[in-house]
Amino acid sequence: MEEMNLTNLQRAQVITQALPYIQKYHNKIIVIKYGGNAMISEELKMQVMEDIVLLSLIGVKPVLVHGGGPEISEMLKRVGKESVFVDGLRVTDKETAEIVQMVLAGKINKHLVNLLGEYGGSAIGISGIDGHLIEAEVKDERLGFVGEITNVNVQPILDLLEKDYIPVVSTVGCDNEGNVYNINADTAAAYIAGAMKAERLITMTDIPGILKDVSDPDSLIKCVTIPEAYKLFEDGVISGGMIPKVECCIDAIKKGVHKVTILDGRVPHAILLEMLTDEGAGTMVKAE
Amino acid sequence: MEEMNLTNLQRAQVITQALPYIQKYHNKIIVIKYGGNAMISEELKMQVMEDIVLLSLIGVKPVLVHGGGPEISEMLKRVGKESVFVDGLRVTDKETAEIVQMVLAGKINKHLVNLLGEYGGSAIGISGIDGHLIEAEVKDERLGFVGEITNVNVQPILDLLEKDYIPVVSTVGCDNEGNVYNINADTAAAYIAGAMKAERLITMTDIPGILKDVSDPDSLIKCVTIPEAYKLFEDGVISGGMIPKVECCIDAIKKGVHKVTILDGRVPHAILLEMLTDEGAGTMVKAE
Amino acid sequence: MEEMNLTNLQRAQVITQALPYIQKYHNKIIVIKYGGNAMISEELKMQVMEDIVLLSLIGVKPVLVHGGGPEISEMLKRVGKESVFVDGLRVTDKETAEIVQMVLAGKINKHLVNLLGEYGGSAIGISGIDGHLIEAEVKDERLGFVGEITNVNVQPILDLLEKDYIPVVSTVGCDNEGNVYNINADTAAAYIAGAMKAERLITMTDIPGILKDVSDPDSLIKCVTIPEAYKLFEDGVISGGMIPKVECCIDAIKKGVHKVTILDGRVPHAILLEMLTDEGAGTMVKAE
Amino acid sequence: MEEMNLTNLQRAQVITQALPYIQKYHNKIIVIKYGGNAMISEELKMQVMEDIVLLSLIGVKPVLVHGGGPEISEMLKRVGKESVFVDGLRVTDKETAEIVQMVLAGKINKHLVNLLGEYGGSAIGISGIDGHLIEAEVKDERLGFVGEITNVNVQPILDLLEKDYIPVVSTVGCDNEGNVYNINADTAAAYIAGAMKAERLITMTDIPGILKDVSDPDSLIKCVTIPEAYKLFEDGVISGGMIPKVECCIDAIKKGVHKVTILDGRVPHAILLEMLTDEGAGTMVKAE
Amino acid sequence: MEEMNLTNLQRAQVITQALPYIQKYHNKIIVIKYGGNAMISEELKMQVMEDIVLLSLIGVKPVLVHGGGPEISEMLKRVGKESVFVDGLRVTDKETAEIVQMVLAGKINKHLVNLLGEYGGSAIGISGIDGHLIEAEVKDERLGFVGEITNVNVQPILDLLEKDYIPVVSTVGCDNEGNVYNINADTAAAYIAGAMKAERLITMTDIPGILKDVSDPDSLIKCVTIPEAYKLFEDGVISGGMIPKVECCIDAIKKGVHKVTILDGRVPHAILLEMLTDEGAGTMVKAE
Amino acid sequence: MEEMNLTNLQRAQVITQALPYIQKYHNKIIVIKYGGNAMISEELKMQVMEDIVLLSLIGVKPVLVHGGGPEISEMLKRVGKESVFVDGLRVTDKETAEIVQMVLAGKINKHLVNLLGEYGGSAIGISGIDGHLIEAEVKDERLGFVGEITNVNVQPILDLLEKDYIPVVSTVGCDNEGNVYNINADTAAAYIAGAMKAERLITMTDIPGILKDVSDPDSLIKCVTIPEAYKLFEDGVISGGMIPKVECCIDAIKKGVHKVTILDGRVPHAILLEMLTDEGAGTMVKAE
Repeated sequence: MEEMNLTNLQRAQVITQALPYIQKYHNKIIVIKYGGNAMISEELKMQVMEDIVLLSLIGVKPVLVHGGGPEISEMLKRVGKESVFVDGLRVTDKETAEIVQMVLAGKINKHLVNLLGEYGGSAIGISGIDGHLIEAEVKDERLGFVGEITNVNVQPILDLLEKDYIPVVSTVGCDNEGNVYNINADTAAAYIAGAMKAERLITMTDIPGILKDVSDPDSLIKCVTIPEAYKLFEDGVISGGMIPKVECCIDAIKKGVHKVTILDGRVPHAILLEMLTDEGAGTMVKAE
Repeated sequence: MEEMNLTNLQRAQVITQALPYIQKYHNKIIVIKYGGNAMISEELKMQVMEDIVLLSLIGVKPVLVHGGGPEISEMLKRVGKESVFVDGLRVTDKETAEIVQMVLAGKINKHLVNLLGEYGGSAIGISGIDGHLIEAEVKDERLGFVGEITNVNVQPILDLLEKDYIPVVSTVGCDNEGNVYNINADTAAAYIAGAMKAERLITMTDIPGILKDVSDPDSLIKCVTIPEAYKLFEDGVISGGMIPKVECCIDAIKKGVHKVTILDGRVPHAILLEMLTDEGAGTMVKAE
Repeated sequence: MEEMNLTNLQRAQVITQALPYIQKYHNKIIVIKYGGNAMISEELKMQVMEDIVLLSLIGVKPVLVHGGGPEISEMLKRVGKESVFVDGLRVTDKETAEIVQMVLAGKINKHLVNLLGEYGGSAIGISGIDGHLIEAEVKDERLGFVGEITNVNVQPILDLLEKDYIPVVSTVGCDNEGNVYNINADTAAAYIAGAMKAERLITMTDIPGILKDVSDPDSLIKCVTIPEAYKLFEDGVISGGMIPKVECCIDAIKKGVHKVTILDGRVPHAILLEMLTDEGAGTMVKAE
Repeated sequence: MEEMNLTNLQRAQVITQALPYIQKYHNKIIVIKYGGNAMISEELKMQVMEDIVLLSLIGVKPVLVHGGGPEISEMLKRVGKESVFVDGLRVTDKETAEIVQMVLAGKINKHLVNLLGEYGGSAIGISGIDGHLIEAEVKDERLGFVGEITNVNVQPILDLLEKDYIPVVSTVGCDNEGNVYNINADTAAAYIAGAMKAERLITMTDIPGILKDVSDPDSLIKCVTIPEAYKLFEDGVISGGMIPKVECCIDAIKKGVHKVTILDGRVPHAILLEMLTDEGAGTMVKAE
Repeated sequence: MEEMNLTNLQRAQVITQALPYIQKYHNKIIVIKYGGNAMISEELKMQVMEDIVLLSLIGVKPVLVHGGGPEISEMLKRVGKESVFVDGLRVTDKETAEIVQMVLAGKINKHLVNLLGEYGGSAIGISGIDGHLIEAEVKDERLGFVGEITNVNVQPILDLLEKDYIPVVSTVGCDNEGNVYNINADTAAAYIAGAMKAERLITMTDIPGILKDVSDPDSLIKCVTIPEAYKLFEDGVISGGMIPKVECCIDAIKKGVHKVTILDGRVPHAILLEMLTDEGAGTMVKAE
Repeated sequence: MEEMNLTNLQRAQVITQALPYIQKYHNKIIVIKYGGNAMISEELKMQVMEDIVLLSLIGVKPVLVHGGGPEISEMLKRVGKESVFVDGLRVTDKETAEIVQMVLAGKINKHLVNLLGEYGGSAIGISGIDGHLIEAEVKDERLGFVGEITNVNVQPILDLLEKDYIPVVSTVGCDNEGNVYNINADTAAAYIAGAMKAERLITMTDIPGILKDVSDPDSLIKCVTIPEAYKLFEDGVISGGMIPKVECCIDAIKKGVHKVTILDGRVPHAILLEMLTDEGAGTMVKAE
């Protein structure tokens, strides 16, 4: 980080300028979806963790929901698990589901808990299996254990928040027969935020947000209403991987989340910037 | 305030640098003695209030104890109350005690509560009479209702903190016969901090702290142990009005306060500087 | 007090005769408006305080709301503050508002808290500024800081009651800009009682109650319904200063207070008489 | 009750004169032993119940412990149960123990609960069997189920007090084999008061207290210390049935009860007189 | 009990097979009506108590409601109380009501509490008088104190359950004039179960359940809906003493009890069998 | 499981015979160490899970601590991680530690949580990293991240128990620098049981217990005191892998666990047998 030539007074002034934002989010639940491609560098990851610990200390109630596509792919490759594809979609057989579970709940989850701990945060990592948090069923027989969420039971998260832990959630699902499901992390985060009537859902990604012109980072759409989003779907402005992300945002709003943001995880301290200053990075989706 | 050319990222960095200090004071009680000559200007007073609200929001438990010598003198003069002196000390007769009570509990206390409210803080102002907080007796018959503290009952302060209010305390005392006493605010703050086993007592004043050479502001003694302080008394380095102030600090430490600081109230955001950066303004007094 | 030649048995009988009344008001909130001209003598004031402490000990939840016109006038005169009048009404400029605040919150409030303490009551005095209890705005530009109540936030009173303190409330109001307002105490008491859905509002005054013939104290109307009160307004039976008092009573009933009484503060132990015997002093106003 | 020509003001004065006593016993546990010969008349019994309900309403925590010798004798006679005597002492065989249990827990206990309910008190009657409150063993093989207390488990009483019921306790004992014991009510009351560190134990009887000369009711000893009591035992001043009663009082004091009184149950409202006025009826036993 | 040649493993297997039933009734309120003719033998009574203690330990919340016709008759006979009959129904005069109260609340209730205690259960026995649990009025002037329930106040039962006691309830009723009523135990159990929205009401009796042919124990109707029950009333299949029993069951269901069973108290461990295995003894009545 | 020809009555009898054991362990914390070689078969594992859910439902507070040597070895092999050995001991480098963490916290932990959920248990799985549960440091520089426990912070486990979850703990450790340690599961279980002053520690293994003659399963020592154990160490009776196991047992007892048992995990329902019958499988270690 570049050296700032600030006097301590200037530091104090900067902190006091955050006062109205701190008041605004006091005791509010903020669900942060992080992981996959947004986990660009170790340094940025550290800053995300630092931001979350800070939020938790100043009275905000952050819930960290993570996926981990790249690490899963890497582990599958490493154990020599050949993937089968149906219509171009990877099939999640029992063994794959187990590896997904292991990487998410055992590797990434504990790594994040550990990082939060390094900054002094007291985190507890759980998965969708713990306390039957995420219940799911098969979405498409041909794809195996790719789960469609049937129910979200947020009590374990509320219990952890009540005891002042930062909950870190791995998005694997379970059912009553002992099966484990690979769950899309954006979808799970939207469900969880909705079920908790969270104040905000922040979905971190590795692009600036919704762009009018995908090739032009300066064409960022800073705010979009649900009707406008549908229009952008039609017009093909929102396309590819951005479509399900935006659909999750819309879902979350419909379930009662007050404010949903797609945030550029490559921006240092993007969460603090978004929450404690008037500078919004990324695209805000709102009801209307 | 001069304009800072900071990017929002730099702002976020400044805030995250305060993280370890925020952790350190989480849920800790900090007694701040403010008032009298330290209330130099309206602008500085606003900053003190802003700092206190900020502390309260980020999980610190500030208790504001105030006196108000100059306003009392002004009101006595205004109502044409002639002061009687004994050996050069002003006598506090019944009428004077009533004016002291009125100015402290009715004017300054509510003014401070009001300012804290303007910054979004939820404050409740009480006096040493409320809930029999400060019990006192006559110190010197000739001086009338100048009170010596006989007992401090901090339950009302603890009750207000539990309900998330910022307690603001006027230092008038009471007894079982309905008398009201003028109590030295430094002494009261030390007693209250001691009775609550506060993490810190910060006594705000209008000088830089303890100076080796009173005429040289650069001769500040940044840290002094109790034995060193006694030595400085002997050597006459600590003299005049600073003597009782330092004695209060020593008392507070002996009663169990962890850290006591004489802080220069003329420094903008002195409290935040002292608590959230590594720059200590003023003189810290410690056990040894 | 005249000597009663009662045996202790007779004393016990008297106490047990209060049993049904004690049961009736167990855990009920009773708002008592006191002050101004009703504070006739020191002796009567002591009895009011004694009654309130007694109520608080036997499980009733009294809230004391006070004004203090005469003391304010006296202090204004004493500090040589010339009053300006508009259409015969006194203008409350900033300086006057400050003196109102000081006299109510600093002098009378603490004096009442002190008296309650003398009888063993544990009271905490707050003003409409504390915890933003009474929010107000300018009623008439020409009159300055004479406040019209815009909101009453009774949480601080409930918090004090929960902690078993007797709340004593000074009727000054605040707004978000730091202004202080002079609030009519009858109005404030009615608002507070209404917001708390108090069991009873007792407004103490220095006359017997509503009189059919103002010159004849024996013409007391013991009970009046709201429609009857409107009729008495029309007929001019209720006139002068009694009009706003009765309007406040009607307001309180409409806001959900069960029973409202205008009580003669000159009757010794009027509150106990009213609450623990079948003898009602004063006029009861009821819905219909 | 004779008619008192009291004004309501005088009534209010009487009530306020009880204020310091009400404060003194606020939230304090008072164990009252009542029953047997002290239950002289229906009218006096009603007054005892009225007093207890009143105490409970004004914040005192009364626990009523009762025996019931005369009713037991009457029932034994009625069912034609012949008593067997050993050395002049009645043998409590299994059948007798069952009748003792039935009369105490089923007749007297519920009768008292019912009377308390009539005065608006919320009482729950339990016996020494409930929650294993009084554990006992055989005292003297020849006397059968006359119990010696081995343990008192006051948790059920504390649980009832916490839920604001007036506990009414029948003094039958139990053991781990399902046996039921006849327990002396004075002894049980002393044990229970001791185990609860009660503020006071009041043992109601049908004589004025300890008399210097049994034949002279005016020779009442108003206060006696434990050493003095032992002296009175030796001198034969305390004799007969008074011996075990005074022994129980001494036991209770040794177990930590603050103040123990033998009270004349024939005096109307004796409990209120004792607790809310400065007139003590009966004899107070104190440590020294 | 016959000796079982079971290995401990088999014992463990038996216990684990109860797991789903234990889960099903976790924290659920089960009202068990027991008494009268169902209390066939000491041995069976012991088993009922053992079952109830076991339920209470494994997290079920049993409430035991009892009557006691035979013991009442026996005691009336024993004290030589001649019964008066009106239209073939026994008149409950004041003296009879008192004996009913004494036998139920003093003999049977404490006997059951004692037995529960022997198995390690912590029970507290109360009657309909305690805490004004069962309020009643005269049903038929000619029958005296035979009570019709006017109100059931289950707070005392809830308070005892909250404190982990097994409540044992004697079905005598009270009113505001101090009268005591003989209440039908089936009716009281149905009212109590309904007022608590109990999961189950189990009415224990001394026959197999509802029989198609009263003379043929093998003609048991295992399950009956309310409409079917009305049909069975019409057809005379349900007749005699079974009619009011079934009516109580129907009442309970209408008041919100989930499942009601008439259970054969002569079957050893009938309650455990009914609740922890798939074998239902007796007749289940359900809504439809 | 072989079919038992038991009547339901016999089933009920079996269950009631467990009553005294259920009472004994009510609300007691039982730490069960399971994993590694004791996880012999899927069927046995299911029974262990069933037993734990049953314990949790009947009011016992089980804590499951697991290791997982075989799965770790298998995964290391599968990802082609070559192990380096020092003096015959495997070195845990950073990459190995990460795989240990992943397999324990991600695979085995969630698998156990899932199985508990299948039986209706509500479990939450955490690792020694979560809430900084197990703090460790390097034991032997040459072995890398093989951890020696420096501190156990059981608050997260207590919080989960308070919220009625079954805590499942993976034995990886953490430090303040973000390192992850492989922790011996027996040691961790002993530390955790000791820190919680658990009623019992049950260490499941794949042998009958301590054998006098390792080759003779019938030479089981059923109970051993600490001094006897030291003697058996000396005599070589306790040898090999049993040495550290017994040392952990001794440690746990010294830290305050009441009773420690080495239990044969190959016995079906060994935990229930051990806890709910008088048949102890395995060896009990006790203080003396």
